[in-house]
Amino acid sequence: MAERAMRELLRVVMVLMLLMLAAETEAMSSRRGNKRGKEESSRSGEGDSMSFCLSWRLAVEANNVVAWPTVPPQCSQYVETYMMNGQYERDLDLIVEEILGYVNQTLLPPDAIDAWILDVDDTCLSNIFYYKSKNYGCDPYDPSAFRKWAMTGRSPAISSVLRLFSILVDRGFKVFLLTGRDEESLGEVTKNNLQNQGFVGYERLILRSAAYRGKSAVKYKSDVRKQLEEEGYRIWGNVGDQWSDIKGDYLGNRTFKLPNPMYFVP
Amino acid sequence: MAERAMRELLRVVMVLMLLMLAAETEAMSSRRGNKRGKEESSRSGEGDSMSFCLSWRLAVEANNVVAWPTVPPQCSQYVETYMMNGQYERDLDLIVEEILGYVNQTLLPPDAIDAWILDVDDTCLSNIFYYKSKNYGCDPYDPSAFRKWAMTGRSPAISSVLRLFSILVDRGFKVFLLTGRDEESLGEVTKNNLQNQGFVGYERLILRSAAYRGKSAVKYKSDVRKQLEEEGYRIWGNVGDQWSDIKGDYLGNRTFKLPNPMYFVP
Repeated sequence: MAERAMRELLRVVMVLMLLMLAAETEAMSSRRGNKRGKEESSRSGEGDSMSFCLSWRLAVEANNVVAWPTVPPQCSQYVETYMMNGQYERDLDLIVEEILGYVNQTLLPPDAIDAWILDVDDTCLSNIFYYKSKNYGCDPYDPSAFRKWAMTGRSPAISSVLRLFSILVDRGFKVFLLTGRDEESLGEVTKNNLQNQGFVGYERLILRSAAYRGKSAVKYKSDVRKQLEEEGYRIWGNVGDQWSDIKGDYLGNRTFKLPNPMYFVP
Repeated sequence: MAERAMRELLRVVMVLMLLMLAAETEAMSSRRGNKRGKEESSRSGEGDSMSFCLSWRLAVEANNVVAWPTVPPQCSQYVETYMMNGQYERDLDLIVEEILGYVNQTLLPPDAIDAWILDVDDTCLSNIFYYKSKNYGCDPYDPSAFRKWAMTGRSPAISSVLRLFSILVDRGFKVFLLTGRDEESLGEVTKNNLQNQGFVGYERLILRSAAYRGKSAVKYKSDVRKQLEEEGYRIWGNVGDQWSDIKGDYLGNRTFKLPNPMYFVP
């Protein structure tokens, strides 16, 4: 009886050990399976889309892809990750470092006519919270919703550009903030928003006057820069998140394109 | 005795089970540890460098970072991966698709003066095998080694650009291949290299004449384009891998920047 019991127990032990071994093997194979599944999906579905979105964003930033009405729908997640997970800020930081390298090489003559131009939306002030509600640019442009957002005056500063702005002002540049925002409806709130975000000490905030309503940003901004040069200003640098900020005439000595994969302004 | 044996066996079973449990817990924690280790290293070392190189390449392609003598040493591996693992080709493909979209919108008048300009090095012909030997652009520029490579006449076609070229020729564009290569020493071999790679049917191959030796590519190429416009050509498109191909005057109706993270031509 005791021997039978022992044999029975031994059998139970062996079955238990086999079961545990089987469970572990199953777990391992399922882990491997998941990994393989992920790699495959990243090669076919997700990966293809990620790779396309990388190419698309590069082509946008190099001005190869133009006049795009919305972010391609398959890039919604990609643009969100880019904007929110740090790479957007790192891209901005590197460009601002490059700009500061250039600023440090300039020796301003003491005649106080040295100008610098900064765009406002998504250059000085970030609209990322607004675009979050618009699926990061996958939803169509919605001028009245954007106006409502701008009217709140709560666009936060883009910190690397605020840093650049302060250095430019300290160095004696006359900084012109040149925006396509409508002067009549958004002038006051934009001025306040800039002030509450620390953009203090600029030379002039220039908004779109009634005469330029409906005109392209390239035409409007070129005309303003021409006017500044006629006033005697030397434009050393010109920074914007849109190619229409830095295309056209009287561009200045150097132009800089900040990233913006969310919308295109013609 | 039998009972003692059974108790002994039970103890052995429990110890065995505890040991197996401990081993599995250890394995799990070690797996977790590895994962954490990798995430951390990707956040600090590798990841920082990857993230910097992403920002650097974007800034290069958007013409924010200029006159860089070599690829930053920490980006050697990154540039190799970009060039060799498919993303470079995918970036080229997307741009060529964009160009073809534009080409399809143009309706050429039947006056046969519709021109298109393509650069040669790393636009029509790839120097990737040469740059592989130069650490993908991390090694300093070596004009005599490059000349030796060009003299072999073995630069392969960039397939997406060859496809574009053939479509342009078929559509009736007069395609001008405009290169900074020296006419005297590299004229013949370049002509042969283009032919053996399938670039057949272009209007003219224009190389740098003695008068432009040592001059910037922007000056040389602007002068050539001016000459073409004076000859009566309408330049519809202008494609190059360098900003110096598509900056300056008489640029044409649209310009396209192909990726090149390996070198900068002023």
